[in-house]
Amino acid sequence: MRILVINPNISEIVTNLIAQESRRVASPGTELLFATAPFGVEYIETRMEALIGGYAAACVAAERQGEYDGVIIDAFGDPGLLGIKEMLNVPVVGMTEAALASACLLGQRFSIIAISSRIKAWYLETVERSHLTTRLASIRSLNDTLRSIGTVQEDHAKRLKELALEAVEKDGADVIILAGAPLAGLARSLEGQLPVPVVDGVSSAVRHCESLIALNPGYAVQGSFAQPPLKPNKGLPAALAALLDRTR
Amino acid sequence: MRILVINPNISEIVTNLIAQESRRVASPGTELLFATAPFGVEYIETRMEALIGGYAAACVAAERQGEYDGVIIDAFGDPGLLGIKEMLNVPVVGMTEAALASACLLGQRFSIIAISSRIKAWYLETVERSHLTTRLASIRSLNDTLRSIGTVQEDHAKRLKELALEAVEKDGADVIILAGAPLAGLARSLEGQLPVPVVDGVSSAVRHCESLIALNPGYAVQGSFAQPPLKPNKGLPAALAALLDRTR
Amino acid sequence: MRILVINPNISEIVTNLIAQESRRVASPGTELLFATAPFGVEYIETRMEALIGGYAAACVAAERQGEYDGVIIDAFGDPGLLGIKEMLNVPVVGMTEAALASACLLGQRFSIIAISSRIKAWYLETVERSHLTTRLASIRSLNDTLRSIGTVQEDHAKRLKELALEAVEKDGADVIILAGAPLAGLARSLEGQLPVPVVDGVSSAVRHCESLIALNPGYAVQGSFAQPPLKPNKGLPAALAALLDRTR
Amino acid sequence: MRILVINPNISEIVTNLIAQESRRVASPGTELLFATAPFGVEYIETRMEALIGGYAAACVAAERQGEYDGVIIDAFGDPGLLGIKEMLNVPVVGMTEAALASACLLGQRFSIIAISSRIKAWYLETVERSHLTTRLASIRSLNDTLRSIGTVQEDHAKRLKELALEAVEKDGADVIILAGAPLAGLARSLEGQLPVPVVDGVSSAVRHCESLIALNPGYAVQGSFAQPPLKPNKGLPAALAALLDRTR
Amino acid sequence: MRILVINPNISEIVTNLIAQESRRVASPGTELLFATAPFGVEYIETRMEALIGGYAAACVAAERQGEYDGVIIDAFGDPGLLGIKEMLNVPVVGMTEAALASACLLGQRFSIIAISSRIKAWYLETVERSHLTTRLASIRSLNDTLRSIGTVQEDHAKRLKELALEAVEKDGADVIILAGAPLAGLARSLEGQLPVPVVDGVSSAVRHCESLIALNPGYAVQGSFAQPPLKPNKGLPAALAALLDRTR
Amino acid sequence: MRILVINPNISEIVTNLIAQESRRVASPGTELLFATAPFGVEYIETRMEALIGGYAAACVAAERQGEYDGVIIDAFGDPGLLGIKEMLNVPVVGMTEAALASACLLGQRFSIIAISSRIKAWYLETVERSHLTTRLASIRSLNDTLRSIGTVQEDHAKRLKELALEAVEKDGADVIILAGAPLAGLARSLEGQLPVPVVDGVSSAVRHCESLIALNPGYAVQGSFAQPPLKPNKGLPAALAALLDRTR
Repeated sequence: MRILVINPNISEIVTNLIAQESRRVASPGTELLFATAPFGVEYIETRMEALIGGYAAACVAAERQGEYDGVIIDAFGDPGLLGIKEMLNVPVVGMTEAALASACLLGQRFSIIAISSRIKAWYLETVERSHLTTRLASIRSLNDTLRSIGTVQEDHAKRLKELALEAVEKDGADVIILAGAPLAGLARSLEGQLPVPVVDGVSSAVRHCESLIALNPGYAVQGSFAQPPLKPNKGLPAALAALLDRTR
Repeated sequence: MRILVINPNISEIVTNLIAQESRRVASPGTELLFATAPFGVEYIETRMEALIGGYAAACVAAERQGEYDGVIIDAFGDPGLLGIKEMLNVPVVGMTEAALASACLLGQRFSIIAISSRIKAWYLETVERSHLTTRLASIRSLNDTLRSIGTVQEDHAKRLKELALEAVEKDGADVIILAGAPLAGLARSLEGQLPVPVVDGVSSAVRHCESLIALNPGYAVQGSFAQPPLKPNKGLPAALAALLDRTR
Repeated sequence: MRILVINPNISEIVTNLIAQESRRVASPGTELLFATAPFGVEYIETRMEALIGGYAAACVAAERQGEYDGVIIDAFGDPGLLGIKEMLNVPVVGMTEAALASACLLGQRFSIIAISSRIKAWYLETVERSHLTTRLASIRSLNDTLRSIGTVQEDHAKRLKELALEAVEKDGADVIILAGAPLAGLARSLEGQLPVPVVDGVSSAVRHCESLIALNPGYAVQGSFAQPPLKPNKGLPAALAALLDRTR
Repeated sequence: MRILVINPNISEIVTNLIAQESRRVASPGTELLFATAPFGVEYIETRMEALIGGYAAACVAAERQGEYDGVIIDAFGDPGLLGIKEMLNVPVVGMTEAALASACLLGQRFSIIAISSRIKAWYLETVERSHLTTRLASIRSLNDTLRSIGTVQEDHAKRLKELALEAVEKDGADVIILAGAPLAGLARSLEGQLPVPVVDGVSSAVRHCESLIALNPGYAVQGSFAQPPLKPNKGLPAALAALLDRTR
Repeated sequence: MRILVINPNISEIVTNLIAQESRRVASPGTELLFATAPFGVEYIETRMEALIGGYAAACVAAERQGEYDGVIIDAFGDPGLLGIKEMLNVPVVGMTEAALASACLLGQRFSIIAISSRIKAWYLETVERSHLTTRLASIRSLNDTLRSIGTVQEDHAKRLKELALEAVEKDGADVIILAGAPLAGLARSLEGQLPVPVVDGVSSAVRHCESLIALNPGYAVQGSFAQPPLKPNKGLPAALAALLDRTR
Repeated sequence: MRILVINPNISEIVTNLIAQESRRVASPGTELLFATAPFGVEYIETRMEALIGGYAAACVAAERQGEYDGVIIDAFGDPGLLGIKEMLNVPVVGMTEAALASACLLGQRFSIIAISSRIKAWYLETVERSHLTTRLASIRSLNDTLRSIGTVQEDHAKRLKELALEAVEKDGADVIILAGAPLAGLARSLEGQLPVPVVDGVSSAVRHCESLIALNPGYAVQGSFAQPPLKPNKGLPAALAALLDRTR
């Protein structure tokens, strides 16, 4: 099976982190393809940036349609996810929803550890979209300015681990989610150092996307995830228009 | 005060409906500007179409930045709304949130009358984003194929009124929201014909946007609606990049 | 249009604060009438006081029926509001619901700044009645004894501003609501001093009541906001009995 | 122990129904006192009528303060209940909350059978105030005009039983609540005729009020159910003013 | 009436505490029978222990079927409660649901004071099962190792009282629930020492079970609390099998 | 990796259905072990039966401790699941939570198709325990008496498919969950016959359990899923006691 892993942002360095962690966990026989958004921002902290990243991810998914059996949208917050699910007839998995699925299977209440305080509102709203706020113990975050988006986990390893411990001890978290593609692989590095299970969104997404492809549940031709009804459009990237027009 | 009213879709005929109804209700001294999305689809029924419309609306708002004291996003479902609110330092009002505000002031439970069955999931999720699902009595919709998006209210007036009555009698609605820009003005035509208050999103948005401008509450420089933090971007329309970069 | 603004409490000094702020924000052509409850308490902090104030406000609204096109109940907590809405065939707007409508249009999560700690439970229940608790970031309050209900904002300006800042920084508020008629006008005084939008209930109520009158949505003759069914009553103030009996 | 049972409405005939059923279930040693509101309406179907009934009940409770060890507010919808609880230092039990307590102890989901369709919104909001809407299977009601409030259960026995059966079979109710003081005693008449437990509010209130008195949990001198803080009042009935002023 | 009070755990010393407090509050004419689980753990802090205790309580209830008119499951967390309710045609009351019923009749928001921090998650989930989490102000607990389960209230009286005060002052509790059978009787000892009503689960359960028996609401022969449908079983204790098979 | 798949009921025929479907979907390298409860009932429809099945499953898991890297509890409703998760230091996955995880990754709202009407309350409460009721479109069920638990899918294939279609068309389901181990494999048989994705709990559980083992998130030594604190126990099966006592 071939899975297209899309970084909805322009940061190649984050795509590399994603690729490293994804390859480690992929099953034999899974071919992973990686794509970086051709336009957008370095990383997403806000709803506006998510709007851009979501649209960019949709364009990438349309452009490469035909190359894959499943798609992963690999930014925490799942930009554009539900729209892209409608557009494609293969499983599309978001990094956050994948992390939440893992976390819910490992405990009743989870905390999210984030890389900036600004990002917290966007993450909260992502959890709301999954209707899981009552299982969210807390969102805790770094408050420092980031030196580089590619080195967050090295630069802030100690503080990130402290935040996770606080979530367990003060907020009652049963499970910790280390959030954001820039933290891909940190859960692996922290193995055995935290007193509760630790979830990584990037690797969870790979495994869950593989599972959905393997389970072969079929796709929607009716209901709210069927492809959008045919109607006039204009000015869209050719691949996107072709998908909406069913001409490819 | 000048308000830019954005149709996030490409349908000029709907922009005209919006403009007619908006002008009827605007206060003396309010100057209304209208814009139609330069790219996108004819009208939004799905999450994918909303993603396109939201991005298009953001581009229009950025392009015309400086011309207005407030912005209205005039498609039911409020595509891109929260992101655009972050980006701008003036009030930005969505057609749905405006209708919900009116409805909540007029009763405890409201129903939404929609133009297609496919659109219902997207509307439900919009109400969820406002955390008002427990005040939603029902969403009822036409099930017919639409002859033209510009003539829905003429073609289906009788059925739309029936749906509203069913919402009152079977679902316990205190207030009816006639949803979707294509229905702009229908509430006015139905005046006195329904046994409960009837809300129109287009006119509500004009009045509420005027009110926010008049109340002068200030804008966010901190918290989740402050402008996105400065960071690298690429490949974006010039006006949008300039806004994100604070270079205009 | 004529709007009757009712202070459900006996404090003329608060009616004056309300009148000053209301007049500043009213649109040209709006005639404001003010009334102070003829019986009741100085200000409402508890459910019992709200019961008294609600009944008093209903009596005033009935007494002056015919003089107005809309009514405002101007105490935070909206005493008697839903009952009075049923009784009258014109828009009736509560100070709290007006503030919540403004706040919801300005951000996703809001905090309420209150004048006493005792008042917090009553405010929380008011937000619950609007089904908006999941958008409530916090209620923070003064804890001091009040010298005079007419001078709260002068006496405690610094602390009130601090509470608002704490709500932004610690509770994640996108918007601040300065609650309680005794704080009418404080938002205006604090203009530019807080890092997020600030909402005042008194001025919001004036604008939203004007909007509802202008939008002309009609009134309920069916459903839960139609006038109470005719049935025997006794011992009520004449104006109230006349309204219930439809004899005026 | 002495319990004052207040009918918040003016209908003596309903007070009689209440008295009959209350006496049947009261424990040995419980002295029941009954009071009918001196002003108000015949029975409550709406929020406005509940506002009147709540105020009337508070006046009665104040007037007879000193005569009782506990109070029951015996109209479904619990008019004025939380306010009266604040005002008094003895247990105050509402007919609805008592029925809900019984129902919750007998099953997970309950239905309410009501005497008019208009009353349903008011009952729903009462259940919301108890935060139990997710355990509410349905509210079903008579739709006929009532011949007399004193003979509802005789006139409509068959239909009321049918409604209860529909609630079990179609709505998944584990328990049936026969709502409204006019139905006091119907549960007893239907004994053995319904396939699930049946709850009567009037008798539940007597038992639960007795239990609270017996359990002797103490009363609030702090928190949101302590008596309202001392402050100026005017124009109130003497007994009510005396209670608020702590002069009796 | 005869009520069987089951301690779902093996600790005779706790059964004694339960018996003392239960007898103090039982009405004249109530005969109380006590049973200690023949297998299981000393006291329940976790979901696994609750699973064992619930099964043990069901076995005891089956074994002694015929001896009682009502059953009480006397461990906070109500192990096995809903299953046992299905199995028997008499009222079955859990210690927690009884405490919650009392608390809800005494105020809007309650806090639970618990004997260990580990127990908090289990208590939270118990409140969730009652759908009352939005009325839960907080759960506060001892953090010390317990010397003996039979002497918790003597050993930790001061700290337990402090926790209750913190719940009132910091968390806004209107009512305090002293949770866990090992604290049976502490509410009585603290009489008059806390500024809000204090609820004890053991005594609440006695009174509410008596009330349900007296109210005679009938039992379920349909719906989700009817006895489990007949079907093959094997390997069960004889009394339990007989009950499921309707052979006793 | 070795996974122990436990049928919490005594029906070997259902264990066989589970084994067939599980083997079809297991990854190369996964060794599946199967166990049937040594005591209990034929299949679970009620809370009481779930209590028995949960305890039986816990005993089996304890008995075979050391043989596996993960455990699956394979009855819809997940009897005993959270308790067993606490007890073991390997991933434990329930059939329902696995189905819900798949469904949530495939759409926003799902319906559950069940084999008897009695089972619906138990399934609803299982969804509540996952906090996902607001994503549950409906539970629809067969109403017929079952000829044999091993032939439900053959005997009722047509009706089960109709129920799924009704869930899509009337209830707005994006995804269908075919619930209950007796339906294991039906999703596979219906491939391509339903207009939305179809989820099978048995195969979902295998894939998700494999994923959790592969992701290697660690286990809880703190928080609410750590093993129960050491304390006295008696009368338990030896393996269970040994696990609680940490003597194996």
